[in-house]
Amino acid sequence: MSKQVLVLPGDGIGPEIVAQARKVLDKINAQFQLGLQFEEGLLGGAAIDAFGVPLDEATLARAAAADAILMGSVGGPKWDQLGRAIRPEQGLLKLRSSLKLFANLRPAILYPQLADASTLKRDVVSGLDLLIVRELTGGIYFGEPRGIRTLPDGEREGYNTYKYSESEIERIGRNAFEMAMKRGKRLCSVDKANVLEVTVLWREVMDRLAPEFPDVELTHMYVDNAAMQLVKAPKQFDVIVTGNMFGDILSDAAAMLTGSIGMLPSASLDKNRRGLFEPCHGSAPDIAGQDVANPLATILSAAMMLRYSLDQEDAAKAIERAVSAVLDQGLRTGDIMSEGMQRVGTEAMGDAVVAAL
Amino acid sequence: MSKQVLVLPGDGIGPEIVAQARKVLDKINAQFQLGLQFEEGLLGGAAIDAFGVPLDEATLARAAAADAILMGSVGGPKWDQLGRAIRPEQGLLKLRSSLKLFANLRPAILYPQLADASTLKRDVVSGLDLLIVRELTGGIYFGEPRGIRTLPDGEREGYNTYKYSESEIERIGRNAFEMAMKRGKRLCSVDKANVLEVTVLWREVMDRLAPEFPDVELTHMYVDNAAMQLVKAPKQFDVIVTGNMFGDILSDAAAMLTGSIGMLPSASLDKNRRGLFEPCHGSAPDIAGQDVANPLATILSAAMMLRYSLDQEDAAKAIERAVSAVLDQGLRTGDIMSEGMQRVGTEAMGDAVVAAL
Ligand SMILES: CC(C)[C@H](C(=O)O)[C@@H](O)C(=O)O
Ligand SMILES: CC(C)[C@H](C(=O)O)[C@@H](O)C(=O)O
Repeated sequence: MSKQVLVLPGDGIGPEIVAQARKVLDKINAQFQLGLQFEEGLLGGAAIDAFGVPLDEATLARAAAADAILMGSVGGPKWDQLGRAIRPEQGLLKLRSSLKLFANLRPAILYPQLADASTLKRDVVSGLDLLIVRELTGGIYFGEPRGIRTLPDGEREGYNTYKYSESEIERIGRNAFEMAMKRGKRLCSVDKANVLEVTVLWREVMDRLAPEFPDVELTHMYVDNAAMQLVKAPKQFDVIVTGNMFGDILSDAAAMLTGSIGMLPSASLDKNRRGLFEPCHGSAPDIAGQDVANPLATILSAAMMLRYSLDQEDAAKAIERAVSAVLDQGLRTGDIMSEGMQRVGTEAMGDAVVAAL
Repeated sequence: MSKQVLVLPGDGIGPEIVAQARKVLDKINAQFQLGLQFEEGLLGGAAIDAFGVPLDEATLARAAAADAILMGSVGGPKWDQLGRAIRPEQGLLKLRSSLKLFANLRPAILYPQLADASTLKRDVVSGLDLLIVRELTGGIYFGEPRGIRTLPDGEREGYNTYKYSESEIERIGRNAFEMAMKRGKRLCSVDKANVLEVTVLWREVMDRLAPEFPDVELTHMYVDNAAMQLVKAPKQFDVIVTGNMFGDILSDAAAMLTGSIGMLPSASLDKNRRGLFEPCHGSAPDIAGQDVANPLATILSAAMMLRYSLDQEDAAKAIERAVSAVLDQGLRTGDIMSEGMQRVGTEAMGDAVVAAL
């Protein structure tokens, strides 16, 4: 029973970090006899260069047919001057939306070996392990109408629409409650219900779901307060659920609390848990091709892929243990380097994880 | 030549902290012969209790006629069960909008005496002094259409509109460039131009203004990255300008970086620099009436009022020096208490500032 994995290296450091994840997956594929089959495709700037669009229909069709997608990262200054219709990011947004990958899971975990990489004081972040569940196919990212129009008086106005239907909120809400059930059983829903009607409905639906999950403690927090509490006392959170835009902002803030965003994977899942897996960090064009990027977030994204989309918990755990082992060995890429540790490049880090498997 | 100041203590700790600011203003009024005249009004929950609305027309008219407004804080659980139309926050939003207080200035300053109050490592935040300029009367806070509607298939949908016209962006943009001119001459405009059209226009207008301020270095940053950079290296920023919603989130995160949100004032100004001045923190109903709240943010808001709306720079400086002096004396309210310091209550802190004047 073979499983198809579509690999989309993307732009910037994408190809180098994905190459390391591929090495790791090849080894695990053999060790656990997973029957994974890989094919590659272009996304983002790379696809613009090849096809003139950031995601062509053929690649989208292959993505839809695959059992899982492993992605690197997209974007870079090379494509920044183009009009918005052909930005690299649009390929990623189209992929998320077309495949209905509505549930974006973004863990923010502090690796004990990297406790000092955080800009926060040790006791504030040590042991940090929170999960942000971000709605990914709705909200203001996709709301219509949108655009830039000329008003009757001749000046222009830009506009976007922030909207959620009850069923969209229920779908991501259930997902978040289920995640909380498997973790610390505390769910904090983040909104701006004191100002935005769309989030008044969001809060109402979350409250309505709560009785279905009597073991989970549901709380609500305004987004401004959530941004503050993440800085003040991040360990108060177990699972946070929120909309697309707030999730984008809060998950990046949360990731940075750990000081090692180069370590953080993410999953974007559809209702059958098929999904796209990518590191939290961006394409870092400034360091692309220099063998200095940290491949661990992508390798850990591959582990998430095994866990969520391919039902291979043991293989996922093996990768996570191997990553922990190389950290214990003192190996560090530049972004997580600290005194007394051994600096290694992208390739060497990938090889070390393979060796630790 | 007398000046009218409308004082709106609001809810929760509002009345106690505003009372301390009043003491300070009374002393400075006499010392500098400022001719300030004070009147009081109700806002928020207090106004709901008295008039059934969070801001009645008579109070709004007095606010419009005043030279400046000093506010405490609004909101609390007592009014949380009401429908949205009569929430305390609506009074504040109506005040901002009716008086066209479009420029919200939120400094995030780390007081050297309180360096250890931050959850961030000392070297990351020591000397932090950044200013967030938030657009306050537009964007998604006020955009129409908005509401909750029933879709043809019977399910409900919540929706809000995020929009800005060129003139709204220009107005806040100029203000931010001017602020940057008086400070470190670096302005970072925060948007989400890779996804939201409204912020594509935002970025375009900021770029168009830049040549008018050749001494200011303008940069752009996506909001998710800004949230990350605030945690990673907040001292990279001088002035940040952004829209209403992003400004709400980022200014709270920035305030919390200092670890002493009880110290941070804010100003909301119209085009003639008439304005409303309030602490960054909320109404903290849990500690209201216990003489433990920190009145310094409100006292420093009074200093901002003297500086921006009443053109009394010397008097403003005198208050700021007095606040610094009481910190040097080792006086601390509970929120900023640390070992070896002397814990004092709200009243005693207010008295100490008066004495230091
Ligand atoms: C690249 C961009 C469109 C994307 C987003 O905003 O969703 C990224 O920031 C993310 O969080 O995955
Ligand atoms: C009380 C609330 C409406 C307000 C806002 O969101 O603007 C507050 O959070 C603020 O930042 O002043």
